Amino acid sequence: MQRIAIDMDEVIADTLGHYLERYNSELGRNLTREALLGKRVMEVAPPEDVPHIMKYFQTAEFFSKIGVMPGAQEAVRDLTGQYEVFIATAAMEVPVSFAPKYEWLKEHFPFLPSSHFVFCGDKSIINADYLIDDSVKHFGRFRGEGILFTAPHNIHETRYRRVNTWDEVRDMFL
Amino acid sequence: MQRIAIDMDEVIADTLGHYLERYNSELGRNLTREALLGKRVMEVAPPEDVPHIMKYFQTAEFFSKIGVMPGAQEAVRDLTGQYEVFIATAAMEVPVSFAPKYEWLKEHFPFLPSSHFVFCGDKSIINADYLIDDSVKHFGRFRGEGILFTAPHNIHETRYRRVNTWDEVRDMFL
Repeated sequence: MQRIAIDMDEVIADTLGHYLERYNSELGRNLTREALLGKRVMEVAPPEDVPHIMKYFQTAEFFSKIGVMPGAQEAVRDLTGQYEVFIATAAMEVPVSFAPKYEWLKEHFPFLPSSHFVFCGDKSIINADYLIDDSVKHFGRFRGEGILFTAPHNIHETRYRRVNTWDEVRDMFL
Repeated sequence: MQRIAIDMDEVIADTLGHYLERYNSELGRNLTREALLGKRVMEVAPPEDVPHIMKYFQTAEFFSKIGVMPGAQEAVRDLTGQYEVFIATAAMEVPVSFAPKYEWLKEHFPFLPSSHFVFCGDKSIINADYLIDDSVKHFGRFRGEGILFTAPHNIHETRYRRVNTWDEVRDMFL
């Protein structure tokens, strides 16, 4: 059985959506996904906003409130019928996220065994045939094929097969 | 560069030592490593002790107080000169261990980047050439070679290359 590893933030978890919602409401901004094409929030936010934004990733509460990407639950569940599915997230960059990320996965993807969750940093440690991720930095040394899940920041990337939605993931694999 | 993945409990962390020390002192027992040859603590402890022991693994404090295996720090540091070294621990079985395990690694193995820490469950997800572990259950589907680190419970296992100490790990790899 082939194995698919799936990233969390911007792939199954709508981290940017929650991020923008909080940022716009708390600082009275109107930053949109469209303004972020090819860029990260830090590159377009006014410098005076950065200290406030940085704090988001230092609280467990931020991670627990993130929504699920549209269609992700159904598609991942269907994938488990034909593939071994693992969730691989670079949680080591943000240790405060360990507990809320674990709880989030148990809540929103209860059909996945926790033995298939991987909290790592350098994803070249992942032994899988495919890695669905929004960050190309994980693809260079990955032993399988990297599949790029579209996020505003990666819109100009052309080196990898791309999926824009969970329907497209389903079409690719099922 | 070849890659070595190294387990935590009973390999770089003397979890059993801390476990026995607490158990013997708190319940007035005298359980030794010798009595555990080929067995797990739960198999030899009196049934009335089990609820007390089970609680150890439900507290973060338990994990933070574990000592380092003799020679592990020096040997792992030396291995990093010739290998990519990752730490791979089945932390998903005990979510309360995430934070203390991360802190423990940062404290005792500060020369390893946290991007090389992996908290997982099923270690077949680890992409490495070698896995040094005390549990053979992780070797069956591991893509590299499993190297068994001796612990009392695995003493009768004969299917894998075995190392008894960190000096022996050094001799094998360097």
